[in-house]
Amino acid sequence: MKVRCAHNEKVLLLGASGYVGSAFLRLLKLERIEVVTLSRSDVNYYEAAALTELIRQIRPTFLINAAGYTGKPNVDACEVHRSDCLLGNAALPGVIRQACESTDLPWGHVSSGCIYQGTHSDGSGFSEQDPANFDFRHNNCSFYSGCKALGEELLEGAQQVYLWRLRIPFSHLDSPRNYLSKLLRYERLLEARNSVSNLEEFVSACWACWSQRIPYGKYNVTNPGSITTGQIVQLIQQHLCPEKRFQFFSDEADFMTKAAKTPRSNCVLDTSKLEAAGIYMPAVQDSIIASLKAWTWADSI
Amino acid sequence: MKVRCAHNEKVLLLGASGYVGSAFLRLLKLERIEVVTLSRSDVNYYEAAALTELIRQIRPTFLINAAGYTGKPNVDACEVHRSDCLLGNAALPGVIRQACESTDLPWGHVSSGCIYQGTHSDGSGFSEQDPANFDFRHNNCSFYSGCKALGEELLEGAQQVYLWRLRIPFSHLDSPRNYLSKLLRYERLLEARNSVSNLEEFVSACWACWSQRIPYGKYNVTNPGSITTGQIVQLIQQHLCPEKRFQFFSDEADFMTKAAKTPRSNCVLDTSKLEAAGIYMPAVQDSIIASLKAWTWADSI
Repeated sequence: MKVRCAHNEKVLLLGASGYVGSAFLRLLKLERIEVVTLSRSDVNYYEAAALTELIRQIRPTFLINAAGYTGKPNVDACEVHRSDCLLGNAALPGVIRQACESTDLPWGHVSSGCIYQGTHSDGSGFSEQDPANFDFRHNNCSFYSGCKALGEELLEGAQQVYLWRLRIPFSHLDSPRNYLSKLLRYERLLEARNSVSNLEEFVSACWACWSQRIPYGKYNVTNPGSITTGQIVQLIQQHLCPEKRFQFFSDEADFMTKAAKTPRSNCVLDTSKLEAAGIYMPAVQDSIIASLKAWTWADSI
Repeated sequence: MKVRCAHNEKVLLLGASGYVGSAFLRLLKLERIEVVTLSRSDVNYYEAAALTELIRQIRPTFLINAAGYTGKPNVDACEVHRSDCLLGNAALPGVIRQACESTDLPWGHVSSGCIYQGTHSDGSGFSEQDPANFDFRHNNCSFYSGCKALGEELLEGAQQVYLWRLRIPFSHLDSPRNYLSKLLRYERLLEARNSVSNLEEFVSACWACWSQRIPYGKYNVTNPGSITTGQIVQLIQQHLCPEKRFQFFSDEADFMTKAAKTPRSNCVLDTSKLEAAGIYMPAVQDSIIASLKAWTWADSI
């Protein structure tokens, strides 16, 4: 019997209990890849020496960092829990880098597209070569976005790491972290254009980066294209809840006054680098329709 | 016998092995105050829960955070060791805040004046009310200054903490961290005007904040006034090394090209808030002369 290359893999997964980490775990189990999950009770993530030692014991072939702090119920919580946000999103990637470099271990880091705001002036999306424009250095961002951008800064010059930029995850599984679930339950919505990531397709694409050994570096891992809140609402009405009516804030100022404590990133990303490397995700419209058609309500949320 | 109030104190000191921490330790021992020192092998500083538990066991009356990462031999090292710099200077104060708030423990944090650059346009120094102008949000700073400013941000709104801003420590004891030792040994100097802190006077003033129970908050803890590199060099020639000749960079651009990897903060601080609270440090010129007159060479440096 032919043994697939992937069967020689042993993945060390950080943050397996989180929304993104658990999707990685499902995928790797489905692919029958050996996974070791690590939580903060197993090892102090913030001690490079402790993590290094653990890597030496476990001897993984690849590490995935899906740990991070996103704030509950939303990113506003990061304005209050600044310390957790800074540790989880900015300091941790730096510590993992140290551990992976000293053990020569290739790895992938779940970064975020939320370090950008808007589009290029011609409406096109930001590529991996564009510097962040929604970060501490532009002094216009949420504490969360600032920390995620700082996390990317800490990985500058690293040789064996993928930076996978996720944007507004959604899937067919109703959940408090699912963008579609949020749109279905928020009292009022903000009209904005965004690139978004189907979570299952995101983790598949991330894993493909490694299993296909594409070059290391930053990748925008979103469904190609972009979509507005209004367009998603129309799709929800067409495919899931025909009777549901949605209310919108009159504009971003209205949203900031009534609902938010910190500015949100709304942005479009260019995914051509990932495609040029041979990894394709379904177009955003198609992926959202598929999720709505397969929609599975949670018992309680 | 009358027992001084201070004798009821029990101080938990973090970073006691460092340049600033060891000065705190000397002072507290001299004052016969009970001190418990804590290093990273005793407790994982970055786990608020672990630190909280330890505080509950030790039951200190006050905590001093003199831990931090300054880079060796100088601040340029922070550009390389970003992870340690971010953990030690930005994340750690946030973690300590959590632990101190959950145990209702008052504390002091050694912050830095290096989050400023220059002076006000009229030449006056920056007060505690002036926002940082040399930080990530101005995108003009060293990684070290950015992290120290972020550390202050994480303490915003904290109720029971002193933020003691140190600037360029010096003393009569020759040491690699002593500014006078640096000036004596650098091949070439940069002319600039700065506020500076006599290290022994700094720790005395910090301790006075607590022992005199002045209001919590930010304090610039430098010797009043400011001084230029050229003026210090003259004092060194007058009081310590009459024969020594010093060479200067032609300007900051020359310095940045030949000697530095990251921009330095050179700034003047206003110390009137500390004085208004009744805590006085000797004028900068006097303090430097006293240090030079009491100068004690290290055997090797």
